[in-house]
Amino acid sequence: MAPNNKSALTNLLRDLWSEGKVEMVETYIAENYTIRHDPGDPWHGQTLDREGYRNRLLASREPFPDQKFQVVEMVAEGDKVAVSWMWEGTHKGNLGDIPATGKVIKMSGLTIYSFEGGKASGHWQIIDRLSVYRQLAGQPE
Amino acid sequence: MAPNNKSALTNLLRDLWSEGKVEMVETYIAENYTIRHDPGDPWHGQTLDREGYRNRLLASREPFPDQKFQVVEMVAEGDKVAVSWMWEGTHKGNLGDIPATGKVIKMSGLTIYSFEGGKASGHWQIIDRLSVYRQLAGQPE
Repeated sequence: MAPNNKSALTNLLRDLWSEGKVEMVETYIAENYTIRHDPGDPWHGQTLDREGYRNRLLASREPFPDQKFQVVEMVAEGDKVAVSWMWEGTHKGNLGDIPATGKVIKMSGLTIYSFEGGKASGHWQIIDRLSVYRQLAGQPE
Repeated sequence: MAPNNKSALTNLLRDLWSEGKVEMVETYIAENYTIRHDPGDPWHGQTLDREGYRNRLLASREPFPDQKFQVVEMVAEGDKVAVSWMWEGTHKGNLGDIPATGKVIKMSGLTIYSFEGGKASGHWQIIDRLSVYRQLAGQPE
Protein backbone atom coordinates (compact mmCIF):
# COMPACT_ATOMS: atom_id res chain seq x y z
CA MET A 1 0.00 0.00 0.00
CA ALA A 2 2.72 2.47 0.93
CA PRO A 3 3.97 3.25 -2.63
CA ASN A 4 0.37 3.86 -3.82
CA ASN A 5 -0.30 6.12 -0.89
CA LYS A 6 2.84 8.13 -1.71
CA SER A 7 1.77 8.68 -5.28
CA ALA A 8 -1.82 9.45 -4.17
CA LEU A 9 -0.41 12.07 -1.78
CA THR A 10 1.79 13.60 -4.49
CA ASN A 11 -1.26 13.97 -6.73
CA LEU A 12 -3.49 15.22 -3.88
CA LEU A 13 -1.05 18.00 -2.99
CA ARG A 14 -0.71 19.01 -6.63
CA ASP A 15 -4.35 18.80 -7.75
CA LEU A 16 -6.15 19.98 -4.61
CA TRP A 17 -3.74 22.27 -2.73
CA SER A 18 -1.49 23.69 -5.49
CA GLU A 19 -4.02 23.81 -8.33
CA GLY A 20 -7.23 24.20 -6.34
CA LYS A 21 -9.26 21.58 -8.24
CA VAL A 22 -12.13 21.32 -5.73
CA GLU A 23 -14.00 19.01 -8.12
CA MET A 24 -11.33 16.36 -7.43
CA VAL A 25 -11.92 16.14 -3.64
CA GLU A 26 -13.76 12.80 -3.99
CA THR A 27 -10.81 11.34 -5.94
CA TYR A 28 -8.38 11.85 -3.07
CA ILE A 29 -10.33 12.36 0.16
CA ALA A 30 -12.18 9.70 2.22
CA GLU A 31 -15.82 10.26 3.25
CA ASN A 32 -14.64 11.49 6.62
CA TYR A 33 -11.43 13.45 7.11
CA THR A 34 -10.06 14.33 10.55
CA ILE A 35 -7.70 17.25 11.17
CA ARG A 36 -6.13 15.52 14.16
CA HIS A 37 -3.66 18.31 14.97
CA ASP A 38 -2.89 21.51 13.04
CA PRO A 39 -2.14 24.54 15.27
CA GLY A 40 -3.46 27.73 13.69
CA ASP A 41 -5.80 25.89 11.29
CA PRO A 42 -9.44 26.93 11.91
CA TRP A 43 -10.50 23.26 11.50
CA HIS A 44 -7.95 21.89 14.05
CA GLY A 45 -9.54 18.92 15.83
CA GLN A 46 -12.56 18.64 13.51
CA THR A 47 -13.82 15.77 11.33
CA LEU A 48 -15.13 16.96 7.95
CA ASP A 49 -17.27 15.34 5.27
CA ARG A 50 -16.32 16.03 1.64
CA GLU A 51 -18.43 19.19 1.50
CA GLY A 52 -16.64 20.41 4.64
CA TYR A 53 -13.28 19.52 3.10
CA ARG A 54 -14.14 21.45 -0.08
CA ASN A 55 -15.07 24.49 2.04
CA ARG A 56 -11.79 24.22 3.97
CA LEU A 57 -9.82 23.93 0.70
CA LEU A 58 -11.54 26.97 -0.84
CA ALA A 59 -11.16 29.11 2.31
CA SER A 60 -7.53 28.06 2.87
CA ARG A 61 -6.49 28.97 -0.67
CA GLU A 62 -8.25 32.36 -0.67
CA PRO A 63 -5.39 34.42 0.86
CA PHE A 64 -2.82 32.77 -1.48
CA PRO A 65 -4.67 31.72 -4.68
CA ASP A 66 -1.43 30.90 -6.58
CA GLN A 67 0.06 28.81 -3.76
CA LYS A 68 2.32 25.88 -4.70
CA PHE A 69 3.47 22.95 -2.55
CA GLN A 70 6.79 21.29 -3.32
CA VAL A 71 7.41 17.86 -1.76
CA VAL A 72 10.86 17.51 -0.17
CA GLU A 73 10.65 13.94 1.13
CA MET A 74 8.14 11.21 1.95
CA VAL A 75 8.37 8.50 4.62
CA ALA A 76 5.65 5.83 4.38
CA GLU A 77 4.70 2.97 6.68
CA GLY A 78 1.40 1.04 6.70
CA ASP A 79 -1.48 3.49 6.23
CA LYS A 80 0.61 6.58 7.10
CA VAL A 81 2.73 8.87 4.93
CA ALA A 82 4.88 11.65 6.43
CA VAL A 83 5.76 14.43 4.00
CA SER A 84 8.10 17.39 4.38
CA TRP A 85 7.28 20.28 2.04
CA MET A 86 8.12 23.79 0.96
CA TRP A 87 5.37 26.25 0.07
CA GLU A 88 5.17 29.56 -1.76
CA GLY A 89 2.28 31.90 -2.50
CA THR A 90 1.38 35.52 -3.24
CA HIS A 91 -0.66 37.20 -0.52
CA LYS A 92 -3.66 38.35 -2.58
CA GLY A 93 -6.55 37.95 -0.11
CA ASN A 94 -7.32 38.58 3.58
CA LEU A 95 -5.36 36.37 5.98
CA GLY A 96 -7.46 36.59 9.15
CA ASP A 97 -7.45 40.34 9.83
CA ILE A 98 -4.40 41.05 7.62
CA PRO A 99 -5.46 42.50 4.25
CA ALA A 100 -3.64 41.48 1.04
CA THR A 101 -0.06 42.79 0.86
CA GLY A 102 0.90 41.42 -2.59
CA LYS A 103 4.03 39.90 -1.00
CA VAL A 104 5.40 36.54 -2.14
CA ILE A 105 5.61 34.42 1.04
CA LYS A 106 7.62 31.23 1.55
CA MET A 107 6.97 28.65 4.25
CA SER A 108 7.83 25.08 5.15
CA GLY A 109 5.92 22.37 6.97
CA LEU A 110 5.66 18.70 7.84
CA THR A 111 2.53 16.52 7.78
CA ILE A 112 1.65 12.93 8.62
CA TYR A 113 -1.30 11.81 6.47
CA SER A 114 -3.52 8.80 7.23
CA PHE A 115 -4.97 6.77 4.34
CA GLU A 116 -7.94 4.40 4.10
CA GLY A 117 -8.44 2.43 0.90
CA GLY A 118 -6.07 4.71 -1.00
CA LYS A 119 -7.81 7.95 0.06
CA ALA A 120 -6.61 10.43 2.66
CA SER A 121 -8.64 10.27 5.89
CA GLY A 122 -6.80 12.74 8.09
CA HIS A 123 -3.58 14.47 9.09
CA TRP A 124 -1.34 15.69 11.95
CA GLN A 125 0.52 18.80 10.80
CA ILE A 126 2.97 21.50 11.89
CA ILE A 127 3.59 24.52 9.67
CA ASP A 128 6.14 27.26 10.34
CA ARG A 129 3.43 29.91 10.70
CA LEU A 130 5.75 32.31 12.59
CA SER A 131 7.79 32.77 9.39
CA VAL A 132 4.63 33.84 7.51
CA TYR A 133 3.75 36.59 10.00
CA ARG A 134 7.36 37.78 10.10
CA GLN A 135 7.55 38.00 6.29
CA LEU A 136 4.22 39.86 6.16
CA ALA A 137 5.56 42.30 8.79
CA GLY A 138 8.91 42.69 6.97
CA GLN A 139 10.81 41.24 9.95
CA PRO A 140 13.74 38.78 9.88
CA GLU A 141 12.47 35.19 9.95
CA MET B 1 16.27 -1.62 10.48
CA ALA B 2 13.12 0.45 10.89
CA PRO B 3 11.93 -1.04 14.22
CA ASN B 4 15.42 -0.59 15.73
CA ASN B 5 15.57 2.98 14.52
CA LYS B 6 12.20 3.67 16.15
CA SER B 7 13.33 2.38 19.51
CA ALA B 8 16.69 4.18 19.16
CA LEU B 9 14.77 7.42 18.52
CA THR B 10 12.46 6.86 21.50
CA ASN B 11 15.53 6.44 23.72
CA LEU B 12 17.39 9.37 22.11
CA LEU B 13 14.49 11.77 22.75
CA ARG B 14 14.16 10.57 26.34
CA ASP B 15 17.84 10.38 27.34
CA LEU B 16 19.28 13.35 25.42
CA TRP B 17 16.45 15.85 24.96
CA SER B 18 14.12 15.19 27.94
CA GLU B 19 16.73 14.15 30.52
CA GLY B 20 19.74 16.07 29.21
CA LYS B 21 22.26 13.20 29.50
CA VAL B 22 25.02 14.79 27.40
CA GLU B 23 27.35 11.90 28.23
CA MET B 24 25.12 9.65 26.08
CA VAL B 25 25.55 11.62 22.83
CA GLU B 26 27.91 8.96 21.40
CA THR B 27 25.33 6.24 22.11
CA TYR B 28 22.71 7.81 19.85
CA ILE B 29 24.40 10.29 17.49
CA ALA B 30 26.56 9.51 14.42
CA GLU B 31 30.00 11.12 14.03
CA ASN B 32 28.49 13.77 11.80
CA TYR B 33 25.00 15.13 12.31
CA THR B 34 23.32 17.49 9.82
CA ILE B 35 20.49 19.86 10.78
CA ARG B 36 19.08 19.79 7.25
CA HIS B 37 16.17 22.12 7.95
CA ASP B 38 14.97 23.61 11.26
CA PRO B 39 13.63 27.19 10.99
CA GLY B 40 14.52 29.18 14.11
CA ASP B 41 17.23 26.75 15.23
CA PRO B 42 20.62 28.54 15.45
CA TRP B 43 22.28 25.47 13.87
CA HIS B 44 19.86 25.30 10.87
CA GLY B 45 21.82 24.05 7.83
CA GLN B 46 24.96 23.06 9.78
CA THR B 47 26.75 19.71 10.12
CA LEU B 48 28.02 19.08 13.67
CA ASP B 49 30.52 16.64 15.13
CA ARG B 50 29.64 15.09 18.51
CA GLU B 51 31.22 17.95 20.44
CA GLY B 52 29.13 20.36 18.38
CA TYR B 53 26.02 18.27 19.03
CA ARG B 54 26.72 18.29 22.80
CA ASN B 55 27.03 22.09 22.69
CA ARG B 56 23.73 22.37 20.77
CA LEU B 57 22.01 20.05 23.27
CA LEU B 58 23.29 22.03 26.27
CA ALA B 59 22.43 25.42 24.76
CA SER B 60 18.98 24.28 23.57
CA ARG B 61 17.99 22.94 26.99
CA GLU B 62 19.18 26.05 28.93
CA PRO B 63 15.96 28.10 28.59
CA PHE B 64 13.79 25.07 29.54
CA PRO B 65 15.92 22.77 31.75
CA ASP B 66 12.96 20.56 32.76
CA GLN B 67 11.70 20.09 29.18
CA LYS B 68 10.00 16.80 28.28
CA PHE B 69 9.22 15.36 24.84
CA GLN B 70 6.25 13.03 24.44
CA VAL B 71 6.11 10.94 21.25
CA VAL B 72 2.69 10.96 19.56
CA GLU B 73 3.43 8.73 16.55
CA MET B 74 6.30 7.34 14.49
CA VAL B 75 6.38 6.49 10.78
CA ALA B 76 9.51 4.60 9.66
CA GLU B 77 10.79 3.64 6.23
CA GLY B 78 14.34 2.61 5.31
CA ASP B 79 16.80 4.82 7.19
CA LYS B 80 14.22 7.51 8.02
CA VAL B 81 11.86 7.90 10.99
CA ALA B 82 9.21 10.63 11.12
CA VAL B 83 8.02 11.48 14.63
CA SER B 84 5.23 13.75 15.81
CA TRP B 85 5.68 15.01 19.35
CA MET B 86 4.33 17.20 22.13
CA TRP B 87 6.70 19.20 24.33
CA GLU B 88 6.45 20.97 27.67
CA GLY B 89 8.96 22.96 29.69
CA THR B 90 9.29 25.70 32.30
CA HIS B 91 10.90 28.90 31.01
CA LYS B 92 13.78 29.21 33.53
CA GLY B 93 16.56 30.69 31.36
CA ASN B 94 17.04 33.33 28.64
CA LEU B 95 15.37 32.47 25.34
CA GLY B 96 17.24 34.72 22.90
CA ASP B 97 16.60 38.17 24.37
CA ILE B 98 13.57 37.07 26.44
CA PRO B 99 14.56 36.62 30.12
CA ALA B 100 13.08 33.76 32.17
CA THR B 101 9.35 34.15 32.87
CA GLY B 102 8.78 31.02 34.97
CA LYS B 103 5.87 30.11 32.68
CA VAL B 104 5.11 26.50 31.75
CA ILE B 105 5.09 26.44 27.93
CA LYS B 106 3.59 23.73 25.68
CA MET B 107 4.53 23.18 22.05
CA SER B 108 4.21 20.58 19.31
CA GLY B 109 6.45 19.62 16.41
CA LEU B 110 7.25 17.10 13.71
CA THR B 111 10.67 15.77 12.73
CA ILE B 112 12.10 13.40 10.13
CA TYR B 113 15.29 11.79 11.48
CA SER B 114 17.92 10.07 9.31
CA PHE B 115 19.81 7.07 10.71
CA GLU B 116 23.14 5.47 9.78
CA GLY B 117 24.10 2.16 11.43
CA GLY B 118 21.49 2.65 14.16
CA LYS B 119 22.63 6.18 15.07
CA ALA B 120 20.92 9.46 14.17
CA SER B 121 22.79 11.39 11.48
CA GLY B 122 20.47 14.33 10.88
CA HIS B 123 16.98 15.77 10.84
CA TRP B 124 14.44 17.95 8.97
CA GLN B 125 12.15 19.62 11.51
CA ILE B 126 9.26 22.04 11.94
CA ILE B 127 8.27 23.24 15.42
CA ASP B 128 5.27 25.46 16.21
CA ARG B 129 7.51 28.28 17.46
CA LEU B 130 4.75 30.90 17.07
CA SER B 131 2.83 29.21 19.90
CA VAL B 132 5.85 29.60 22.21
CA TYR B 133 6.17 33.36 21.65
CA ARG B 134 2.40 33.82 22.04
CA GLN B 135 2.36 31.91 25.34
CA LEU B 136 5.34 33.92 26.62
CA ALA B 137 3.50 37.14 25.68
CA GLY B 138 0.24 35.94 27.25
CA GLN B 139 -1.56 36.05 23.87
CA PRO B 140 -4.04 33.50 22.46
CA GLU B 141 -2.21 30.79 20.52
